[in-house]
Amino acid sequence: MHSLFELEVFIEEIWEEMKKIEELRWGENGLIPAVVQNATTGEILTVAYVSRESMARMRELGETVFFSRSRQCLWHKGETSGNTQKVVSVTTDCDEDALVIRVHPNGPACHTGARSCFFEEVEGFDDNTDD
Amino acid sequence: MHSLFELEVFIEEIWEEMKKIEELRWGENGLIPAVVQNATTGEILTVAYVSRESMARMRELGETVFFSRSRQCLWHKGETSGNTQKVVSVTTDCDEDALVIRVHPNGPACHTGARSCFFEEVEGFDDNTDD
Repeated sequence: MHSLFELEVFIEEIWEEMKKIEELRWGENGLIPAVVQNATTGEILTVAYVSRESMARMRELGETVFFSRSRQCLWHKGETSGNTQKVVSVTTDCDEDALVIRVHPNGPACHTGARSCFFEEVEGFDDNTDD
Repeated sequence: MHSLFELEVFIEEIWEEMKKIEELRWGENGLIPAVVQNATTGEILTVAYVSRESMARMRELGETVFFSRSRQCLWHKGETSGNTQKVVSVTTDCDEDALVIRVHPNGPACHTGARSCFFEEVEGFDDNTDD
């Protein structure tokens, strides 16, 4: 049996292990690349960039919100198309300068209508010796 | 039945659809973020950066080669640790400014010994309503 105090300490420890938005390495331009992955299938859907502000908005909405480098503004994915992405979890790497956002997508990720933005193979890397 | 000429045209078309290294959008610093994914499990292992030169070396070796931003040099993953990553395929996205590299890893991806570099959860995004 654990005392209520012990449980409180345990919860506190878990809480402290989690990274806070401001603790990520935001770098000079204030942006971090984020890999969006389908939480169910594992398929990689998009690489986009997040800012502190887009992270705060994503947390509020529970849906992906990026920072558009071309338009220089927040970009709530699917706001006009309806192809939103419900956020399941956000993890950062050992350097704290990249994110993986696991999502349940509500439609295709790509503006071309493709399920994933990654559909163009780069020449010279296909592995024919599948061992 | 297809003529040999028709088959040649067909192969040519597939070839031309593939992106060449120099056709990627290398940007000002000459680097593109690359997501390394376990080809078997779908797990995201690392986000690292590639240069034209690291891509050419990766193609030669059939193993991941990145450009280390901190050390400003090519970085053949696993060269000293033995934890190499055999390249299965490389795809780019609709903007041609990000890559997904699918690999067969020969050991952990992370310098901490973790299988994946993405092991730190960011606070406030855990989805408790799993619908």
